Amino acid sequence: MTFSVRGVAGLPEIREGDDLVRLVVTATPLADGDIVVITSKIISKAEGRFAAAHDRRDVIEAETVRVVARRGDLAIVENRLGIVAAAAGVDASNVPEGMVLLLPIDPDASARDLAAGLREATGARVGVLVSDTVGRPWRLGQTDIAIGAGGVKVLRQEDVDADGRSLAVTQPCVADEICGAAELVKPKSGAVPVAVVSGLGHLVGDLSLPGARNIVRPMSDDLFRSGG
Amino acid sequence: MTFSVRGVAGLPEIREGDDLVRLVVTATPLADGDIVVITSKIISKAEGRFAAAHDRRDVIEAETVRVVARRGDLAIVENRLGIVAAAAGVDASNVPEGMVLLLPIDPDASARDLAAGLREATGARVGVLVSDTVGRPWRLGQTDIAIGAGGVKVLRQEDVDADGRSLAVTQPCVADEICGAAELVKPKSGAVPVAVVSGLGHLVGDLSLPGARNIVRPMSDDLFRSGG
Repeated sequence: MTFSVRGVAGLPEIREGDDLVRLVVTATPLADGDIVVITSKIISKAEGRFAAAHDRRDVIEAETVRVVARRGDLAIVENRLGIVAAAAGVDASNVPEGMVLLLPIDPDASARDLAAGLREATGARVGVLVSDTVGRPWRLGQTDIAIGAGGVKVLRQEDVDADGRSLAVTQPCVADEICGAAELVKPKSGAVPVAVVSGLGHLVGDLSLPGARNIVRPMSDDLFRSGG
Repeated sequence: MTFSVRGVAGLPEIREGDDLVRLVVTATPLADGDIVVITSKIISKAEGRFAAAHDRRDVIEAETVRVVARRGDLAIVENRLGIVAAAAGVDASNVPEGMVLLLPIDPDASARDLAAGLREATGARVGVLVSDTVGRPWRLGQTDIAIGAGGVKVLRQEDVDADGRSLAVTQPCVADEICGAAELVKPKSGAVPVAVVSGLGHLVGDLSLPGARNIVRPMSDDLFRSGG
């Protein structure tokens, strides 16, 4: 099995109300089974999710469901999407001076809408993942993960090993792995906010597939989320 | 920028003492800049890291440095490599009946040795990552991460955003992202224990590059590791 990942450059700076379907289709060809990985930031910009930088603390608090860990000024929090990240995902990089940007309102809905629009515009059965960059406990550096999914399987069920023994606990999070792969061609400069993954069409399906919200581990099953 | 990931099938069942350089070179061509991602399990098998299944508890205890979380029978522990995982990475899947398999003794050394051997055998400047499958806090499913690296940059430093503002905290863990990408072509059946990533040659360098041990977050900097 082989797949490829290509960065899509040439998108303009995104403004509120921009038609992302048209911009993506103009920037790149798409084929059946392609997965479009789009940086959450440009979804947020198209949705106008800006706030004034001087309101940053209030905005972070409004997005926060629960503080998971804190040291000095740094707070790692669970936000309303179930994503655990610094500053609830509120970010100032690649945003106009004096502004901050919040995560999309409903990234799964944005992903599904974008996938529907791209399918209609191209006739190709494509999937969409919305990616965000997060740090991890225990390991340095960040990786990109999926915070929205439209028409893409987010978890792959593995049933048996080579000798037919049960692999009950094995369920690779393919959506996060695909977003991580896409990060490798999307430098943080923001110049390449979209990547297209070709060759993983077996993971592309109906738009009714569960979204990335389903990757969030239920609180009852979580050993690393303090109550709040 | 484009890169591709291809699974390498056709390796025989690995036994203690097997020459992995020869087996990989026989199974696939390699070119300058290629990164070979190899499942830690086959390194362990070649190193003879088997133990009897009835000694499983003792073996896990010997590999454990610190218990990070526990619920019932499930213990998430930090092992001697700094990897936080269930059962210290001791695993029974795709292992002969009655046996368990430990992680490689020193996966960075194994990766460097394999990279050196592959470079000598092929004349191509290739890198090697040794991957393992781990769960994550807060999110369902597993992803593959790098537990060994030879001749591959493990973290990428990002300095500025598109407007030239500092991105001090941004340092994507490219080694984990590459191992996650490789997992997408390596089903847990074990039939495809090796993947080759082509097109990321800018991340391949000298064999003296820091190994994956350097991805482990220093205890002093970690908000999620309890003392022990």
